[in-house]
Amino acid sequence: MPVNLLAPGANSLYPVHGVQLGVAKAHIRKPDRKDLLVIKLVEGSRVAGVFTKNRFCAAPVTLCQQFLAKENNAIRALLVNTGNANAGTGEQGMANAVQTCEALSGLLGLASSQILPFSTGVILDPLPVERVIAGLPACMENLTEDNWLNAAEAIMTTDIVAKGISRKLNVGGKEVTITGIAKGSGMIHPNMATMLGYVATDAAISQVALDAIIHHAVNRSFNCITVDGDTSTNDSLIMIATNQAANLEIAEDSADFFSLRDALTEVTVILAQAIVRDGEGATKFMTVIVENGKSEEECRKVAYAIAHSPLIKTAFFASDPNLGRILAAIGYAGIDDLEVNIMKLYLGDVLVAELGGRALSYKEEQGAAVMKEPEISVRVDLARGDANATIWTCDFSYDYVKINADYRS
Amino acid sequence: MPVNLLAPGANSLYPVHGVQLGVAKAHIRKPDRKDLLVIKLVEGSRVAGVFTKNRFCAAPVTLCQQFLAKENNAIRALLVNTGNANAGTGEQGMANAVQTCEALSGLLGLASSQILPFSTGVILDPLPVERVIAGLPACMENLTEDNWLNAAEAIMTTDIVAKGISRKLNVGGKEVTITGIAKGSGMIHPNMATMLGYVATDAAISQVALDAIIHHAVNRSFNCITVDGDTSTNDSLIMIATNQAANLEIAEDSADFFSLRDALTEVTVILAQAIVRDGEGATKFMTVIVENGKSEEECRKVAYAIAHSPLIKTAFFASDPNLGRILAAIGYAGIDDLEVNIMKLYLGDVLVAELGGRALSYKEEQGAAVMKEPEISVRVDLARGDANATIWTCDFSYDYVKINADYRS
Repeated sequence: MPVNLLAPGANSLYPVHGVQLGVAKAHIRKPDRKDLLVIKLVEGSRVAGVFTKNRFCAAPVTLCQQFLAKENNAIRALLVNTGNANAGTGEQGMANAVQTCEALSGLLGLASSQILPFSTGVILDPLPVERVIAGLPACMENLTEDNWLNAAEAIMTTDIVAKGISRKLNVGGKEVTITGIAKGSGMIHPNMATMLGYVATDAAISQVALDAIIHHAVNRSFNCITVDGDTSTNDSLIMIATNQAANLEIAEDSADFFSLRDALTEVTVILAQAIVRDGEGATKFMTVIVENGKSEEECRKVAYAIAHSPLIKTAFFASDPNLGRILAAIGYAGIDDLEVNIMKLYLGDVLVAELGGRALSYKEEQGAAVMKEPEISVRVDLARGDANATIWTCDFSYDYVKINADYRS
Repeated sequence: MPVNLLAPGANSLYPVHGVQLGVAKAHIRKPDRKDLLVIKLVEGSRVAGVFTKNRFCAAPVTLCQQFLAKENNAIRALLVNTGNANAGTGEQGMANAVQTCEALSGLLGLASSQILPFSTGVILDPLPVERVIAGLPACMENLTEDNWLNAAEAIMTTDIVAKGISRKLNVGGKEVTITGIAKGSGMIHPNMATMLGYVATDAAISQVALDAIIHHAVNRSFNCITVDGDTSTNDSLIMIATNQAANLEIAEDSADFFSLRDALTEVTVILAQAIVRDGEGATKFMTVIVENGKSEEECRKVAYAIAHSPLIKTAFFASDPNLGRILAAIGYAGIDDLEVNIMKLYLGDVLVAELGGRALSYKEEQGAAVMKEPEISVRVDLARGDANATIWTCDFSYDYVKINADYRS
């Protein structure tokens, strides 16, 4: 069960003026399941994207990057299917992705390069392109601004709950809405960490400012989570600004810029954490904080060594304060000149290790008490600088193995 | 159950002249279990060691490195306990390790710096030094050259079977014996990969030549395996040459050197593979071969990305040819200029992927047939150079989680 995470309530995802969403059951992999989503954007919308760095990135990822790279690209729609990743599919995969864009562009009266395609699901299988195309008219029929929850459900794969969040804020005297949805619960690792995420606002903002915000946000959210250390072929985050809120267009580094940036970042952080809370088989939500390092890079190295260790993740699953495994991970994180005698390790607020060994004040019952909680923080004080990093992850349970051993069957 | 691995037969581990072994049940962590081992070496023996690079290395690892670094160190005994790693134990841990060496040196009439100490087991708990010392007389009572199997059993922790192998060969007209034992089944990762390994020969060999051989061997054996990607605090490999075989002392780069080097390397490869075959929860033995890369380093990167992926390891556990996960791992291995369109992927002898996608000739039944075998090879042809690397690992099962969730309880 997801850790402290519920699906969004019926009215909790606010419409974003200028964004219409339509879903369909296209039978792409499984029957009777919403698996196709069209997001239609009003003319004048601006779109920014960040994508997986996997060299085997999916055909739609390559297309998205090409289309977004065009000057004045005028992106007007997004097309998302689940059930098939269209990755590891070679030239045919690219042709299939193009074909789906062409089909949707025909229905919407757009150029196909105005459509961004996304796929998620099994890798290496050919995309059943005819089913995607056959499902499009059904998406058209329910295109509406008040359809975010259906959209969040339509992009789920092994997710147990739909993920979405909305915020309203005042920008330059105008009310601005932000709504975001995301999916992903396995093959989650930076960079990028989400499999798919879509965040829209009706604010007016320059393209340069929007591009700056998406990178700011992703570095504090989806690039700070890991479930299994596997980097997907399809990870994509899209940020949309529809220019419908009647605010004065936001330029980079203005006061409004920082307000909107922080609100959008908060939305991405909540979505990224939701992915971890719904991590495959997760029973615990772990926050790994590494502070006082020489650089953010070394802090992240240590945090990821902890967050990736199957030994640590299984001990957390068992609520076993087997903290030596954390020291071992810190020790092999790759910091050659790490001084083990000056660093300190905390579990929650409990000092666990100092002077190279177990703290004299530490009692096993204290560790056991912290371990019983569903949300646990591990804090490492490297005591050698002033850089910090925070990573979110989950434990490693029987169900992780079960889900991933059974996923295709 | 271990994959194609049985414990050594009663008479399959040959005595090595000059090496006596004694074991005891010292109740270090659990009752009625062999958990203490003394290895006594004849005067004139030469010893070489390779140790974990973990910054939180255990106190005995630090002591071993200090003692071995002394010129003409005249190492005469090894002392090994299981049940407690004496790691993450600070100054007290070092004092405890010294105390155990002093106790054994008193019994053997040696200086304490002639004793190499080793510990394996739970990290962060204080070593019950009085139990170790109390167990030493019992070890003395059964010190004999024909005791390797007992020794292999005495160093087991979560291992299901004892691991050992012997070889005889002719060196310079004399018969030479090699016997090695090892333990380890979790927290297995280079560099170093074994938790503990001891390989002895009665050959006469110079210290320089022995040092060269241990590094040659470890790079082809224990540094090529991974179970869970965790690098232990206690990994140690020791190579011993007792100078009792009456051969002419072997110098580096002589013909005899290469014969002995290759035989010792073969023994370490078999022991390293045995650790993977008995990997925690293992049901499959996987050989990952990456060939035709630009450098050995990039081949190892790709091989480890595959060997560490929980998604791939759970798919192998399920005998599911979910090969897209392998492509994804190759893609995120960190080779920025990897050409996905020229590389090829084989499962066993079956060509699975080429031209960036699934091979036209590939049929799912072929992959499923290979996946059913207990020993599976994954071969990646990067087609961009002439370097190669081979890594051995195992799958990821429910039992891995069970073993590591329950280990301390």
